[in-house]
Amino acid sequence: MAEIKIAVDAMGSDQAPAVEVEGAVQAAAEYGIPIVLVGREDRVHDQLRRHDTADLAIEVVHASEVITMEESAATAARKKRDSSIRVAARLMRDAGISGIVSAGNTGAVMASVKMVLGTLPVVDRPALSTVLPTQKGKPAILLDVGANVDCKPHHLEQFAIMGDIYSRAIFGIRRPRVGLLSIGEEDSKGNELTKEAFKSLKRAPINFIGNVEGRDIFKGDVDVIVCDGFTGNVALKLSEGLIETFSAMLRQELEKTLASKLGYIFSEKAFRAFRRRLDYSEYGGAPLLGIKGITIVCHGRSNANAIKNAVRVANDFCKHNVNRAIETEFTKLGITRTVGVL
Amino acid sequence: MAEIKIAVDAMGSDQAPAVEVEGAVQAAAEYGIPIVLVGREDRVHDQLRRHDTADLAIEVVHASEVITMEESAATAARKKRDSSIRVAARLMRDAGISGIVSAGNTGAVMASVKMVLGTLPVVDRPALSTVLPTQKGKPAILLDVGANVDCKPHHLEQFAIMGDIYSRAIFGIRRPRVGLLSIGEEDSKGNELTKEAFKSLKRAPINFIGNVEGRDIFKGDVDVIVCDGFTGNVALKLSEGLIETFSAMLRQELEKTLASKLGYIFSEKAFRAFRRRLDYSEYGGAPLLGIKGITIVCHGRSNANAIKNAVRVANDFCKHNVNRAIETEFTKLGITRTVGVL
Repeated sequence: MAEIKIAVDAMGSDQAPAVEVEGAVQAAAEYGIPIVLVGREDRVHDQLRRHDTADLAIEVVHASEVITMEESAATAARKKRDSSIRVAARLMRDAGISGIVSAGNTGAVMASVKMVLGTLPVVDRPALSTVLPTQKGKPAILLDVGANVDCKPHHLEQFAIMGDIYSRAIFGIRRPRVGLLSIGEEDSKGNELTKEAFKSLKRAPINFIGNVEGRDIFKGDVDVIVCDGFTGNVALKLSEGLIETFSAMLRQELEKTLASKLGYIFSEKAFRAFRRRLDYSEYGGAPLLGIKGITIVCHGRSNANAIKNAVRVANDFCKHNVNRAIETEFTKLGITRTVGVL
Repeated sequence: MAEIKIAVDAMGSDQAPAVEVEGAVQAAAEYGIPIVLVGREDRVHDQLRRHDTADLAIEVVHASEVITMEESAATAARKKRDSSIRVAARLMRDAGISGIVSAGNTGAVMASVKMVLGTLPVVDRPALSTVLPTQKGKPAILLDVGANVDCKPHHLEQFAIMGDIYSRAIFGIRRPRVGLLSIGEEDSKGNELTKEAFKSLKRAPINFIGNVEGRDIFKGDVDVIVCDGFTGNVALKLSEGLIETFSAMLRQELEKTLASKLGYIFSEKAFRAFRRRLDYSEYGGAPLLGIKGITIVCHGRSNANAIKNAVRVANDFCKHNVNRAIETEFTKLGITRTVGVL
């Protein structure tokens, strides 16, 4: 097997390229993963000089353009042919790069890699997946969280199978419990989409446990949660917002009296440990499933730790050959891409 | 104006009829609202005897049947003609009851009142609305949270106008900021439904502030958030679940060391105050908008306080003539019910 090499889009995050470079250096040092930093050469080297990179396998490939968070994803992906993400995608297609990590404009990242590499020959629609912490400690996979806002039932079935493979390969769960995000546990509950998808999922060769509700996501009783990209994106952003609000409201309350201020100081370590459990950056970003080559999308507010973990996850995806597994499984099931039916 | 009288479905909640009776007694005592308790006479009187009801305007009306949480909503609503909620709905239609409070099977409550009373002559689809706490203190209204899982764009427009009226009448917000729940702030972001609804909402005579994302719901910068009932229900249950998970994880962390245990004790009062801010029961349930007569749906896990507050909200809805306002506004806008187009 060829050596795995990961490209890090150095220009994506809100603090680019500082956090990307720092995260890449950490990943190269800690895991020994060879890395190619893609972006504005001068700025990347400026950052690299701040670190000790003597024995690390880090290369830099220049890309003259940068896509910002504010740009229209589709337009930027199409027009900026020398953007850091487009260059990274071309390296993956042509130059032996196995995976990409990017904290850039999610829409533009998805559009760019899809445009340059295409979907796996068996997959109708790629899905963006994310990992959420649960009460029981084991992480849960939620997909799709934004790649496809309008879905057909058979897309949800494909997402379920890809999520199942992801859970087995990366988290080592032998028989992942797969749930369909809906609004009641009974088979008959849901909207037109989920009611149809329910029937397909029941027939699929996965451990389908039926409908799950919003409140089940964080409990830890389901390993893979499937939904359309609109619902998933709303759910993901709601969770982020609610955690922030919860923290802020708690802080307000704790600052009210001296006793509770004291309490806060005493419990600060616990708060920190707790925040870490909820920290998306510990989980290493959102894999884009169903695309040729591996792409891990990180939050725009990523820190170096998030980038480092995403590189580790990208490496794991390559090592476990997740894409090969998807192709094999889909082929075995006789799933072929739907053409012209959508 | 005839005196306002509220019917409380005594048999709905998980702890029925104890919490319903206690909440009704509290509401009658605290607010002087006349109440009719509807349910199994013997069991209701058993509970009533535990309270001092000497000077309170509380009546009991017998209903022989009870709908459980496990029953199919549609079947139970249709077949159990003498269920507490059906009897309460008939009292509202025929016997001078202005509003109903029920903590029963939400689907069965909605189906029953819709069946007995019908929607307002101008409204296509009723909407279940809920109130969420925000970081800035002012509550936000989210609708629909489950009455209509599959919506057309004009339904969302109707929800927006009803939510606007609700916000003005009950929370006294002069010019409520109305947002459309979507997956990006730009006009062009969303799924087919929200993209079409966006156009209608821009033309509607409301203070439409555009798309809002999941993370905005709890920030306090939007007063009314509109979505289809599937998305809204997922969002609501996710929020409930996340708060529970958050509390549990925090407790786990705080129990780990003596210092943080001490911290927890010191800050316990703050925790309690905080939980109260997030407590749905303080907000008085979920009004069902667009039905003839006022119906407030409470959580199955309601306590007496939740029932009391829901009675107060039902009374406010009647006092402010919210249904009349909806009819007037819809008529002014030339909105008439769509027949046979759905």
